[in-house]
Amino acid sequence: MKRDNRDFDFTIKTLGPRKILSPLKLSTKIGDSKANFVDDNERVLYQIDHKKGEKIYSEKNALEIAGPREKIYFDPTKVRAAIVTCGGLSPGLNNVIRSIVYTLWYLYGTRSIFGIKYGYHGFLPEEGHEPIVLTPEVVSDIHNLGGTILGTSRGGGDRTEDIVDTLERMNINMLFVIGGDGTQKGARDITNEIEKRGLKIAVVGIPKTIDNDLYFVDKTFGFDTAVEKAVEAIQSSHTEAKAAYNGVGLVKLMGRHSGFIAAHATLATNLVNFVLIPEIPFDLEGPNGFLTHLKNRLLHKHHAVIVVAEGAGQDLLIKDPKDIEYDESGNIKLKDIGVFLKNKIAEFLKREGIKHKIIYIDPSYMIRSIPANSSDARLCARLGQNAVHAAMSGKTGLLVSQVNNRMVHVPIEYVVEKRKQIDPDGDLWRDVIETTGQPLLMKNEQ
Amino acid sequence: MKRDNRDFDFTIKTLGPRKILSPLKLSTKIGDSKANFVDDNERVLYQIDHKKGEKIYSEKNALEIAGPREKIYFDPTKVRAAIVTCGGLSPGLNNVIRSIVYTLWYLYGTRSIFGIKYGYHGFLPEEGHEPIVLTPEVVSDIHNLGGTILGTSRGGGDRTEDIVDTLERMNINMLFVIGGDGTQKGARDITNEIEKRGLKIAVVGIPKTIDNDLYFVDKTFGFDTAVEKAVEAIQSSHTEAKAAYNGVGLVKLMGRHSGFIAAHATLATNLVNFVLIPEIPFDLEGPNGFLTHLKNRLLHKHHAVIVVAEGAGQDLLIKDPKDIEYDESGNIKLKDIGVFLKNKIAEFLKREGIKHKIIYIDPSYMIRSIPANSSDARLCARLGQNAVHAAMSGKTGLLVSQVNNRMVHVPIEYVVEKRKQIDPDGDLWRDVIETTGQPLLMKNEQ
Amino acid sequence: MKRDNRDFDFTIKTLGPRKILSPLKLSTKIGDSKANFVDDNERVLYQIDHKKGEKIYSEKNALEIAGPREKIYFDPTKVRAAIVTCGGLSPGLNNVIRSIVYTLWYLYGTRSIFGIKYGYHGFLPEEGHEPIVLTPEVVSDIHNLGGTILGTSRGGGDRTEDIVDTLERMNINMLFVIGGDGTQKGARDITNEIEKRGLKIAVVGIPKTIDNDLYFVDKTFGFDTAVEKAVEAIQSSHTEAKAAYNGVGLVKLMGRHSGFIAAHATLATNLVNFVLIPEIPFDLEGPNGFLTHLKNRLLHKHHAVIVVAEGAGQDLLIKDPKDIEYDESGNIKLKDIGVFLKNKIAEFLKREGIKHKIIYIDPSYMIRSIPANSSDARLCARLGQNAVHAAMSGKTGLLVSQVNNRMVHVPIEYVVEKRKQIDPDGDLWRDVIETTGQPLLMKNEQ
Amino acid sequence: MKRDNRDFDFTIKTLGPRKILSPLKLSTKIGDSKANFVDDNERVLYQIDHKKGEKIYSEKNALEIAGPREKIYFDPTKVRAAIVTCGGLSPGLNNVIRSIVYTLWYLYGTRSIFGIKYGYHGFLPEEGHEPIVLTPEVVSDIHNLGGTILGTSRGGGDRTEDIVDTLERMNINMLFVIGGDGTQKGARDITNEIEKRGLKIAVVGIPKTIDNDLYFVDKTFGFDTAVEKAVEAIQSSHTEAKAAYNGVGLVKLMGRHSGFIAAHATLATNLVNFVLIPEIPFDLEGPNGFLTHLKNRLLHKHHAVIVVAEGAGQDLLIKDPKDIEYDESGNIKLKDIGVFLKNKIAEFLKREGIKHKIIYIDPSYMIRSIPANSSDARLCARLGQNAVHAAMSGKTGLLVSQVNNRMVHVPIEYVVEKRKQIDPDGDLWRDVIETTGQPLLMKNEQ
Repeated sequence: MKRDNRDFDFTIKTLGPRKILSPLKLSTKIGDSKANFVDDNERVLYQIDHKKGEKIYSEKNALEIAGPREKIYFDPTKVRAAIVTCGGLSPGLNNVIRSIVYTLWYLYGTRSIFGIKYGYHGFLPEEGHEPIVLTPEVVSDIHNLGGTILGTSRGGGDRTEDIVDTLERMNINMLFVIGGDGTQKGARDITNEIEKRGLKIAVVGIPKTIDNDLYFVDKTFGFDTAVEKAVEAIQSSHTEAKAAYNGVGLVKLMGRHSGFIAAHATLATNLVNFVLIPEIPFDLEGPNGFLTHLKNRLLHKHHAVIVVAEGAGQDLLIKDPKDIEYDESGNIKLKDIGVFLKNKIAEFLKREGIKHKIIYIDPSYMIRSIPANSSDARLCARLGQNAVHAAMSGKTGLLVSQVNNRMVHVPIEYVVEKRKQIDPDGDLWRDVIETTGQPLLMKNEQ
Repeated sequence: MKRDNRDFDFTIKTLGPRKILSPLKLSTKIGDSKANFVDDNERVLYQIDHKKGEKIYSEKNALEIAGPREKIYFDPTKVRAAIVTCGGLSPGLNNVIRSIVYTLWYLYGTRSIFGIKYGYHGFLPEEGHEPIVLTPEVVSDIHNLGGTILGTSRGGGDRTEDIVDTLERMNINMLFVIGGDGTQKGARDITNEIEKRGLKIAVVGIPKTIDNDLYFVDKTFGFDTAVEKAVEAIQSSHTEAKAAYNGVGLVKLMGRHSGFIAAHATLATNLVNFVLIPEIPFDLEGPNGFLTHLKNRLLHKHHAVIVVAEGAGQDLLIKDPKDIEYDESGNIKLKDIGVFLKNKIAEFLKREGIKHKIIYIDPSYMIRSIPANSSDARLCARLGQNAVHAAMSGKTGLLVSQVNNRMVHVPIEYVVEKRKQIDPDGDLWRDVIETTGQPLLMKNEQ
Repeated sequence: MKRDNRDFDFTIKTLGPRKILSPLKLSTKIGDSKANFVDDNERVLYQIDHKKGEKIYSEKNALEIAGPREKIYFDPTKVRAAIVTCGGLSPGLNNVIRSIVYTLWYLYGTRSIFGIKYGYHGFLPEEGHEPIVLTPEVVSDIHNLGGTILGTSRGGGDRTEDIVDTLERMNINMLFVIGGDGTQKGARDITNEIEKRGLKIAVVGIPKTIDNDLYFVDKTFGFDTAVEKAVEAIQSSHTEAKAAYNGVGLVKLMGRHSGFIAAHATLATNLVNFVLIPEIPFDLEGPNGFLTHLKNRLLHKHHAVIVVAEGAGQDLLIKDPKDIEYDESGNIKLKDIGVFLKNKIAEFLKREGIKHKIIYIDPSYMIRSIPANSSDARLCARLGQNAVHAAMSGKTGLLVSQVNNRMVHVPIEYVVEKRKQIDPDGDLWRDVIETTGQPLLMKNEQ
Repeated sequence: MKRDNRDFDFTIKTLGPRKILSPLKLSTKIGDSKANFVDDNERVLYQIDHKKGEKIYSEKNALEIAGPREKIYFDPTKVRAAIVTCGGLSPGLNNVIRSIVYTLWYLYGTRSIFGIKYGYHGFLPEEGHEPIVLTPEVVSDIHNLGGTILGTSRGGGDRTEDIVDTLERMNINMLFVIGGDGTQKGARDITNEIEKRGLKIAVVGIPKTIDNDLYFVDKTFGFDTAVEKAVEAIQSSHTEAKAAYNGVGLVKLMGRHSGFIAAHATLATNLVNFVLIPEIPFDLEGPNGFLTHLKNRLLHKHHAVIVVAEGAGQDLLIKDPKDIEYDESGNIKLKDIGVFLKNKIAEFLKREGIKHKIIYIDPSYMIRSIPANSSDARLCARLGQNAVHAAMSGKTGLLVSQVNNRMVHVPIEYVVEKRKQIDPDGDLWRDVIETTGQPLLMKNEQ
């Protein structure tokens, strides 16, 4: 992965000194076979790639380790916590909710936990969505269901003052915000507004994006499940393509800014001949264009499978920046590259006189809405647990995240600063195109 | 995780200077949107946990990055490669075989690939197992099947001279050894024997152990699949336990020296009340013994779920070291803690006058023998690819492994030096027992 | 299937004349594209196999069609219904409960529905299990879980008077009994006791046995799911057996009196070489004994897969009728044919000097406790709906069942009269052994 | 189901007298615990529904039982068999192919088996598709894959003379045709042409249509798998719909002429509020139109799930018969009711001022192309076996089918005569709309 050689300031904000003894009865001793509290000085290095001999360590390159602290900020029995889920569905939302509720209830003894309905809109009085009361009984089986029992929506995160008003009105002192880039920008603004008003409300973000494109996050929950389900779609398209003479399977997968799902699903199957992602530009026409390579594949093998991430090739669709539109979360409304490609391929092959059959699959809802698989379930459990520990310690304005396989605290502003993308010069992309056998770059000489 | 503060020597052995230009047409330029070769000087830090302010980096703490080199040692068209799978089944064996064959055949143009039958025994002439010829056609659909198309067995790895004789007789110059601790010790000895004889045969290991207990390996392939399937067994035991009055679900999972499967499956479900692993000792009887805690749980909730790793509590079963027995791989033959516990629980609850029903599940074969899930499939694909790249570069006596999320080369001797275990003082174990709610330690005061 | 040429009396008992107009607004007209009520005279033939030219129809060979009647017996708003689940788990129990509750609540407007805990024992005051109140909210997601939210147990069905006392005390007028042979004998006795006391309580049975061995029932719910899961176990055993030299996969499946699961799972995989079921006797030793045939298979193919139903070969285990024991449901306690065979095979192959590996899998709990697959889910939905329709019509002492693909009413006494078994002379068994290739009969000449 | 009171002539054509003794060593004795041959006089009744007292049996209402005959027509070692798969994919095609090959090879000893590529087009010399040779080795693992290893296509079945020319040229004397309505019409014409030419070629059809709409076929293979996968799509749409405020899930399922998949998937989930099928007309607008009922549902519950079969509401899309178009198989090209409804709902809800979100899922390829589940796998195994038995007996111009749970022979002309549909007056449709709670008929008074 590309190195980011800045001097980071990973210091986590806190609401104040920690004076309460945690109700968790953990050990502080090493070697007694008992699980331990985490010391506030525990760190893990962030940037660890380097050239032989190069020195890379500095104070500015280490993240705080997450976990329960011996001394905490809040009196857990007085805590009134709120949970909100925002943006599109991702497998595991209910697991995170369940983990937060279980940890608050059983480990800390907190009894006032509220679920905000339909994302940030649930904070806006004029929309009239009542929060629901969360208890272990309510959440005990919800991980078997996809979606979020709280409901979700896009947008509303810019209504910072109204949201903090509602937090004050509800007397909340701990807010868990489960969402992606746009949502966490909202959480950052809420944190700032809270600070401005001098309130003692901890805001802890839990990173959620099925695209896995959050900066400072190894892997978002739901991603593994999404890849697993995307594999099914690829297998279907391969089966259909092979059963027809000159069958062309075309699968559009999620990935607005990054091709992680497309790349990983391709690796998992080894059935894909072309994978198109936002990070790598490509031409359609011309001697080194995608369509020419597709034709050669068909003439040779009589079937082909293409995977395209939804954000790929947007330059082919939007020629004029004026045509860009935005959705309620402030995201660019992508043009449909799947249908565009399907039509271009059909036109081209007809023009070339190649009888064929195109099988186009867009499985997105069937991917987003399923329950988490066991790998994501574990991640969700730990994110929920550590988010509660962070909040109890009075830490705020942070995300709980997994970096270099450790659970850490990351200041929200770093996470929302930019998107994580596949590095074209890195190992993942190389391993992917080794399995597809596609050209290194499908661009014509200029 | 516990730090290991030694000065490591992670230098990888090579067969000689690399003079052949790789047939892979990768880029060596950054920023041209084309996938790149890997430079031999690329490194990733190994030990990255530390206390704030502590300096941890040193030359002796960095692993070589895996991947294709621009210059390679072997002429790929002259290569005669052999693949062997040893030890117990693990999901993904066929995926690794397929990935090696595909990479050799399609990327490097190698046409002579042999599969050794039934593990190291396939090298022994007196057993009469003929190797099979591997081509893309033979391996194209094998990843849909569990097991290994090569067959496997335990032991035979100590027949170093016979094995190298066979390699010479078959004119093999590249050997891929897929196996665990015992198997890789064999691979180390084979490498040494090859060196002694002055042969130019690359030996590359691919770590395989469903228990995930290999040192210098983040996660072995098959582990994720195993956890997923183990979760099913736990869910079954929970369903049965809850449907009965005082139902006790008891699930024995794999884990001879370490409780990774048990711990992760527990995290994934949040249905387990007690998890017993080899790393944490426990008493059965007494006020702080397991049985007392189980009884309290039953009186309170009328059902309980227990997960036990097969290597847990061996001290309760083997009181006298003289009673230890060994299998063909040289592993200690574990006593059956599952059946032992089942009987102890039955006796105890009968003694206590508690009517109950015990549901005992030992799902091991049903876990080991299934196809890899998509997460493991990806890992297998990359291990196979990078193993071939390593061998083509003339590197030998190494394992391809994932460490801190990067694909790296690790000298075999470091991998077989000791077992990876769950750190009782670390984050994983803490997160696990937070979900079970079990006592920190079930040992009576002495 | 073997014909049963008796003159049956399939008349269904009723509590009295039906005077209430059903709240369901169905049509009674054919051809108006609207769903219809069922007329009490609708019938389907039962025995339909015959020789060409043979006349088989008679009045005594037709079953009453299930479904909603235009006129019903009970005032639905006054109904107090109870549901009880008895015996071992079977996939779909929760689906049936959910379907009954939904049908009562949404279609008929009944608001008093009780779930009896832990089978018939829940009726016995001295055991102190309180019934639970069932509403659509309580049952809305339970079909995602295996097991039964009511709990279950064996036995207690002989406490007829106590059970009817409890029904009277609770003021129940509609009882749904979900269970197998033993349970339905209890339901029959309860019906008779109710009649004796002149009470107006409808008793409707829903057939449940994972073994699929109920007479007058095409297929019990859970059976399809069980076969699907059993297939996994067979695949595992096959994978393991093939990966070892002379690997022997041995899978014990459910089937106390009949080999339906074993036979169907064998058909579904075509991986089995020997299937042993209760209906077909076999010898172990001798020239035409099972062990000889197994040896020949191993010498020829070097792996073998055996499926044995738990009730098979009991004559080999219990030589003396005095050794027979009984469980709480009054069922014979079977001796463990799986472990017995495993030991016999090991002894025999050792004696014959054949190095081998036996893979023994007993997946029963992992089969019984999973959620219903979609095929069983549909069956459960319809059984629940039609059971409610039957009860509302004042019919009693019957089972709702599927016969020749139609939902029908069968008098309980016919169902409990004997067990359904595989006909050795029929098409199922022939199709099964055609796929195994096993000898027609493994018995030595006498 | 609606009765069809004709006098049927179910006599099966034969190629000539059966003089060869079957190589199968089955029994002809009842009661010897050995599987039996089938006598040519064995029958099962077809129409079995009736009113109490009504006599329904007649000679003209009984189908011939399928299975192996003691005397057969062909010398199995001389047989040259061909298999062809036509039309769209359906789960289980490979299972049927495998079963035919295994039965021919292992049971009868036939060694010449050919797979015709890409449907009927594979018979046309000008298309240049070479047949492939089928052996147990080739087909041994194909049931793990979806699709058909033979490839498939639409049309070509009207090229009767060319097809029979090819059969003659290839010296085929046994043809297995796996396909639906259009395909079997082709098989009927081929049979007639063969008879005209006085050839001795047996033509045996195996019914395949994922829609399950073949007459004289209880259930086609692939249907169960299709329903299972359709259930996933419905669950996704429900999850998405519930997570949004006024979420509307809309799932288009297969079913050109009949709503079986839609109906069964609805029954399996109990999550659907409206199911629209070809058999039941509906209005969009007006007080009793679908849109009004949808609006009421949304106002009441704030989410809704709609399932629509692809052939539903075609009268709303094609007002003028002149607009009807046909595909290569001669089927009417349906207009896309899914997209049409999606747009109509969006327009309508916008008009009504109801903020909403529509989740539209069209999962068809992901349903068609998956491997068969275990229920379909069993059916496929038996269809393949019994098709071979029929052909070996010299029977021709028939389909092997399951009717009233028995495997039977049906003359092709009866099967292609008309389509099976859901009876609006029957039990299935009633049970379905009981679970949706939708109005009996959504048509306005005229």
